[in-house]
Amino acid sequence: MIDTIETPAIVIDEAVAYANITAFQNYCTQHNLKLRPHIKTHKLPHFAQAQIRAGAVGINCQKIGEAEVMAEAGIDDILITFNILGDAKIRRLLTLANRVKKLTVTADNSPTIAALARSFEAAKKPLNVMIECDTGAKRCGVQSAQEALFLAKTIKASAGLTFGGLLTYPPVGGAMKVNAFMAEAMALLASNDILCPEISSGGSPDMWAAKDTHTATEYRTGTYIYNDRSLVERKTCKYEDCALTVLATVVSTPTSERAIIDAGSKALTSDLLGLNGFGYIVGHPEAKIMSLSEEHGIINCKTDEFSIGERISIIPNHACVVSNLFDFAWLKTSEDEVKKVLISARGRVT
Amino acid sequence: MIDTIETPAIVIDEAVAYANITAFQNYCTQHNLKLRPHIKTHKLPHFAQAQIRAGAVGINCQKIGEAEVMAEAGIDDILITFNILGDAKIRRLLTLANRVKKLTVTADNSPTIAALARSFEAAKKPLNVMIECDTGAKRCGVQSAQEALFLAKTIKASAGLTFGGLLTYPPVGGAMKVNAFMAEAMALLASNDILCPEISSGGSPDMWAAKDTHTATEYRTGTYIYNDRSLVERKTCKYEDCALTVLATVVSTPTSERAIIDAGSKALTSDLLGLNGFGYIVGHPEAKIMSLSEEHGIINCKTDEFSIGERISIIPNHACVVSNLFDFAWLKTSEDEVKKVLISARGRVT
Repeated sequence: MIDTIETPAIVIDEAVAYANITAFQNYCTQHNLKLRPHIKTHKLPHFAQAQIRAGAVGINCQKIGEAEVMAEAGIDDILITFNILGDAKIRRLLTLANRVKKLTVTADNSPTIAALARSFEAAKKPLNVMIECDTGAKRCGVQSAQEALFLAKTIKASAGLTFGGLLTYPPVGGAMKVNAFMAEAMALLASNDILCPEISSGGSPDMWAAKDTHTATEYRTGTYIYNDRSLVERKTCKYEDCALTVLATVVSTPTSERAIIDAGSKALTSDLLGLNGFGYIVGHPEAKIMSLSEEHGIINCKTDEFSIGERISIIPNHACVVSNLFDFAWLKTSEDEVKKVLISARGRVT
Repeated sequence: MIDTIETPAIVIDEAVAYANITAFQNYCTQHNLKLRPHIKTHKLPHFAQAQIRAGAVGINCQKIGEAEVMAEAGIDDILITFNILGDAKIRRLLTLANRVKKLTVTADNSPTIAALARSFEAAKKPLNVMIECDTGAKRCGVQSAQEALFLAKTIKASAGLTFGGLLTYPPVGGAMKVNAFMAEAMALLASNDILCPEISSGGSPDMWAAKDTHTATEYRTGTYIYNDRSLVERKTCKYEDCALTVLATVVSTPTSERAIIDAGSKALTSDLLGLNGFGYIVGHPEAKIMSLSEEHGIINCKTDEFSIGERISIIPNHACVVSNLFDFAWLKTSEDEVKKVLISARGRVT
C-alpha cells in the first residue's frame, strides 16, 4: 500500500519505466543503433536485465563497483566509461574481466593504457579498450584525431588489450561536432590500417535525435528509463513519462504561503541543472520548491494550498542523483501495490 | 596506509576532529551554555560518544533512523528537531522513547502535537516536546509568541507529553532576533504561569558568537567537528581545522590547463553554499573545481599543475552532505595509519 510508505521515499512506476525502455529501444532498433543503457540512473540489476531483454547490447557503468554488482546479476557485456587507475582497481578489473563475456573500458591517455597493458599482458583474455574523445563537452577525452591515432597504436601494440573503437560524451546538441571529429579520426585510423570496430556516442537530452549522429554505431543513455524534470523542460519527454517520484509529507505550514516537506537536499539533491526550483510537485504546477536544507524542502505556494500531513509526489530535477541517495526504492507494480527493492549498485563509489 | 585507499574516499583526521570537539566544548562550558552536537555531520556513533564524553548534554538528530542508530550505541539523551508525522514513525518513536533516558522532539503545529499526544497518552513515560520558533530563517517554526503560548498550553494539557521549552534554527547573524523573539515568548509564557525549561538555539557559522544569544540555555551545532570550506570562507575556522577531506585521483589531463578527477557530484555534492567552485584542493590554492558531473570533477588549473595518477585532498564546501554519500570513511589515526569505519547513520532517510 503506497499510503503506508514512510517518507521521504523513492517510488518507481514500473509500467512507465518499462514503456520508456521499449520506446527508446524501438527507436534505436529502427535506426540501426546499438543501445547500451547507462545503469547509473536506476542502479538496479532487474532493470538492467529488462533493458537487455528488450534488446540492449549490454550496459554502461561508471564505476567498477557498479559493474561488479551487475556482473553478479548475470549481465555479461559491460562498458566502464572511465580511466581506471591504481593497482587495487586494476586487480578488481582483472577479476571482473574473467566473470563476464565482454568487458570494455575507456582511456584517453598513455599512463592509463600503459598500466592496463602491464596488468593484462598475462591475463586469460584481453581487455577491450575504447578511446574517449572530447567532442566539445570539455570533460575527458583526446583533443584531436592525431592523439586518438597515437593511443590506438599503443593499444594495438599491447598484448593484453584489444582496440574497441572511439567513444564520446558529447555536448548537448553536439551531433555535428561528433560526426566531424569521428569522421576525421576514422579516416586517419583507416589510413594507418586500423579498423575502428565501434563509435559510441550518447546523452539523454538529445536521445530522440540519436540518428543524427550518423557516425555512431552505439548510443548510451541512462535517464530515459525514469526521465526527470530536466528532460521535461528540454522537451525530451512529458511529465507522464516520468517513472521516478519522491514521495514526501508536508510537515509544517508556518504561514499560509509556505509549506515545509520532509524531503531536502538529502532526498532531492541540490542539482538545479539550470532550472528554477528543486522539482515539480505533481498536481501543484504553480507551487515552487524554492530552497532546500538537508532534511527540509521549502515550498512557496498559494494561500493554504497544502495541509499538514498531506503526502505529495515530486518529480526531481535529476533522477540519477536521487537514486544514489536512497538504499531502497518502492516499485509501484499496480495501482495499489508496491514492492521494496534494494538499490544494490548505490553508493559504489570506487 | 593512506596511499592504498581506493578513491574517491572520505578521510577524517581524528586528531583534528577531537581538537575541534574540545575547543567548542570549552567555549560552551566557559559561557555556561549546554552543547548539543548535531550528529548529521559525522553520522558516526563513536564521534557522538566522544562529544558526550567531552561534556555535551546529549545529541541532536534530524531523523528517527539516525536516533535509532545512536540509541543502539548507548546515547541516552536525544533531541529530534523535526515534526514527526505518520503512524509508522510515531510507533518507532514510542519504541525509541523506551530505549533512552530522555527523548525530545520539536513541533510547530497543532496536528503534530495532537497525534503525538494521542500516541503517548498510554506510554510508559511522557515524550518531551519543544516548540520550534521561526526567528527569521523562514523554515519551520511558529511565527509569534502567541502561537508558542497556544502550543505550550496544548502540550501541557496532554497527559503523554511534557513541555521542553522553545527551540529555533536562527538565520545567520540572527542573535538579536532570537533574543527578541525568545524574550517576548518567555514573558508571555511566564505571565501564563508556564515555566520554559530550555531555550535552544544553534547554527555553525555563528558558533563562536553563541554567547550573544544570551536567552539561550543550549546550543546546537554539527559541522564544527569536521569544519568545511564554507566555514573557512565565513572565517569560522581555518583550513587546518578541517578534519574531513575527500581523497581523489587525477584521471585525465586533456589539456594542460584542465584536469579531471574521479570525484564528482556523487562525492562532493552540488552544494555551492554561495561559494565559487566545488571545494578547496589542499596545496593547490589557485586551482578551481569549476564543475562537476556525477563521477567527474573538472579542474581549471595552471599549465601542467596536475599529473595523471596524482592523488589530491579536497576540503568540500559542505562536509555534512558529503558524509551522507559514502558508506565508509577512513579515520586517519596517525601520520601513516588509517582505519575503515562504517558511517552507520548514513542514509537513514526516515
